[in-house]
Amino acid sequence: MATTQVVMEAALTRAAAAREADLADLFEELRIPSVSTLPERRQDCLRNAEWLKARLERIGFKTEVVDVIKDGLPVVVAEWNGRPGKPHLTIYGHYDVQPPDPLDEWQSPPFEPEIREGRIYARGCADNKGNHMATLKAVEHLVAAGGPPINLRFVIEGEEEISGESLPRYIRANGSRLKTDAVLVWDSGFDEDGHPTLATALRGLLYVELHARGAAVDLHSGMYGGVAPNPINTLARIVGDLKDRHGHITIPHFYDAVVRPSPEELASWKKKDAGYAETVKRMSGAKVLEGEEGFLALERTGSRPTLDANGIVGGFVGEGKKTVIPARASAKVSMRLVPNQDWKAILAALEKQVEELTTPGVKITVEMLGAAPPVLCGVDHRAAQAMRAAYKEAFGKETALVRVGGSIPVSIDFQEAVGAPLVISGIAQSDTAIHSPNERLVVDNYHRGIEAVIRFICKLGE
Amino acid sequence: MATTQVVMEAALTRAAAAREADLADLFEELRIPSVSTLPERRQDCLRNAEWLKARLERIGFKTEVVDVIKDGLPVVVAEWNGRPGKPHLTIYGHYDVQPPDPLDEWQSPPFEPEIREGRIYARGCADNKGNHMATLKAVEHLVAAGGPPINLRFVIEGEEEISGESLPRYIRANGSRLKTDAVLVWDSGFDEDGHPTLATALRGLLYVELHARGAAVDLHSGMYGGVAPNPINTLARIVGDLKDRHGHITIPHFYDAVVRPSPEELASWKKKDAGYAETVKRMSGAKVLEGEEGFLALERTGSRPTLDANGIVGGFVGEGKKTVIPARASAKVSMRLVPNQDWKAILAALEKQVEELTTPGVKITVEMLGAAPPVLCGVDHRAAQAMRAAYKEAFGKETALVRVGGSIPVSIDFQEAVGAPLVISGIAQSDTAIHSPNERLVVDNYHRGIEAVIRFICKLGE
Repeated sequence: MATTQVVMEAALTRAAAAREADLADLFEELRIPSVSTLPERRQDCLRNAEWLKARLERIGFKTEVVDVIKDGLPVVVAEWNGRPGKPHLTIYGHYDVQPPDPLDEWQSPPFEPEIREGRIYARGCADNKGNHMATLKAVEHLVAAGGPPINLRFVIEGEEEISGESLPRYIRANGSRLKTDAVLVWDSGFDEDGHPTLATALRGLLYVELHARGAAVDLHSGMYGGVAPNPINTLARIVGDLKDRHGHITIPHFYDAVVRPSPEELASWKKKDAGYAETVKRMSGAKVLEGEEGFLALERTGSRPTLDANGIVGGFVGEGKKTVIPARASAKVSMRLVPNQDWKAILAALEKQVEELTTPGVKITVEMLGAAPPVLCGVDHRAAQAMRAAYKEAFGKETALVRVGGSIPVSIDFQEAVGAPLVISGIAQSDTAIHSPNERLVVDNYHRGIEAVIRFICKLGE
Repeated sequence: MATTQVVMEAALTRAAAAREADLADLFEELRIPSVSTLPERRQDCLRNAEWLKARLERIGFKTEVVDVIKDGLPVVVAEWNGRPGKPHLTIYGHYDVQPPDPLDEWQSPPFEPEIREGRIYARGCADNKGNHMATLKAVEHLVAAGGPPINLRFVIEGEEEISGESLPRYIRANGSRLKTDAVLVWDSGFDEDGHPTLATALRGLLYVELHARGAAVDLHSGMYGGVAPNPINTLARIVGDLKDRHGHITIPHFYDAVVRPSPEELASWKKKDAGYAETVKRMSGAKVLEGEEGFLALERTGSRPTLDANGIVGGFVGEGKKTVIPARASAKVSMRLVPNQDWKAILAALEKQVEELTTPGVKITVEMLGAAPPVLCGVDHRAAQAMRAAYKEAFGKETALVRVGGSIPVSIDFQEAVGAPLVISGIAQSDTAIHSPNERLVVDNYHRGIEAVIRFICKLGE
């Protein structure tokens, strides 16, 4: 058997020679419009799962497409246990993507990947196909170079963007069977200064829809204006009241459990906060940033919870005028939660507050669309150290310790049910525009990402 | 020449025999989907105008389809001056209708009229095709019976539902040529007790759209939540704040010019207010009525101004979740104004208030979509007296004096430019559901309405 060093060098040489093929493989997956939230894209999601299975089998992994929940989207689980007695790594990714709308803001079609100025443009190129394909290609090169020095498992789900229950249930039902020494959750990216990152915490999520109902039918505002309950007015007032003008969320006890960041974190954030705020402004096109008064921008996106309306609709929304008082209106509202907030307590407080804020003629129901608890993770375990070293060699850069504003719900399931340390990181550059039009991934990050994963896996085998 | 009495009797006999044909003619017009607010329905609107022209020419009216504004919808103007020296009556109507959505709430297709339990169901059957066809059929029977005893003009516009400028401009440009002794504005209906009505005042309208713009593109709420301006949150708070929980509109000086109703009006409203409120609840399906605290329901729909959001949209409104902070959101907001409120002053105050209420990162622009001043009209002139007598004979009922909650913008143009007294009335029963799904008109009201107009015209010729 070749030494780990020899295998690594051979895999890196192979990766350097296979850049075109590695990109072509990613493009093939990007052409599958695997939008999990749209029922009409279900077949594409299933096709994406089968596509991954075929690739993983080709490199010698025992692979299953596991249907966990009726009408859910399956989990792709692939195992390779060619190194008995050696450490075991689980690699997590997701094959589903966000809807591409608004479509007319894309400069090239979202599911026809295109390279412009060193960047791949396509829905999912960063979130998460570019990330998981980089890990898959790294393993492929290691296999071709003589075999990885450790045992490996891929777990790639299809319900990340819809906070689905399939993977959480699978992990919790198979906790002991999924024993592993570390979980690589490769679903994030670099900071604004271009440094690779390791997460110290992830925000959780509580996503609800408020349904407001007034009269039984739409009414004429001339005839009924003055007496008819108006679900838009009432719902707007409630959505408006949930967060005040100063960015303070008004749900009772919402902030009670929020922990302040460590002095070390705060000190490092203070230094780079002004630059970060400028970067955010440039990337978002926002002229002025908003948010909770009295906190750094990095706190507001990392260690502070948030509340945002993500969608609202009601009444006549076509061109022109219609003098209608509608019977219904609805709003999607989500909260990003931080350690140690409890989404169940917050949901209960929100339901109570909405009932208090509504007007007598408008009935509001709160529909829970999804939740994920926040995650705290250490960065001093062996896998985290290996990742930092791999990044240093592949990108020539130190790793920044960050709070991740988004949630990776499955992290908590891995942490609680499997008990292994988490390495939460990824290769998307900071202007990646995930969930937005023109999502993009720096081509070089993809290739160096493959290199970093080869190095990371080999370090775990040393 | 036959006497007026003989002509009237002959016309009434003819109308009684022609009920089936009179209905068939109305159905023919109801099948034209003349929705003025939808650009894709423009050809249908033009077809409706030509259809009216053909019918009016057939009964001997000199008829023009007048294009007043480029790309506007034309006004149908028809003249019959066969009684020199006799009084002149102008009959107003509109051939355009409201959009039929939400389509799935209709029990039969909106543009395929159907009679169920003594009611015609179709978009526009009450507002305004049933009303203007009843006047047209009345005149047709009078012509066939020997000729009306007075001179007549029809003015039927196509922009009533969009507060268009074509008819106002036409009237103001042709004020002196349009000399007339009375204007019959037949576009309303009966009260909740089943009595015909005459309007003492009409509410005006100010209709705006608020456009909110935050960042340049849609953003991911995990990455940007906490710093990104959210146009939905800000817009919702503003729309919510324009009217408080107690139904009080907060625009500065909004109520300054509002006149209290007369003691007589107030006394009559007090008597029937409880019954009216019950009827409104039954008709609307609202479990509780809302509105300005401290006022009768009849005040709130008649003599008090209102503010209602008519539509709102922003962000992700599909099924499921999308964790997006959208770049844009918009809301349609309209106000019903009462005598002597000035929409220009209110628009200016609203613009100022919106600018004060917005958050630093959200730019809101106020687009004016339409306005109509409120109207006060007397009910003691000859034409009003003739109408009340005609109603008594045709329906066997006294006429109630009412405030009309909706606006008939053209009334003010007739009043100001032509100077003739207004008779504002109509045949729609109170549960007519105009602007809503399943708009309906009592068949008997249509036939008795034809009779009432025959009698009204003959009384003016006595």
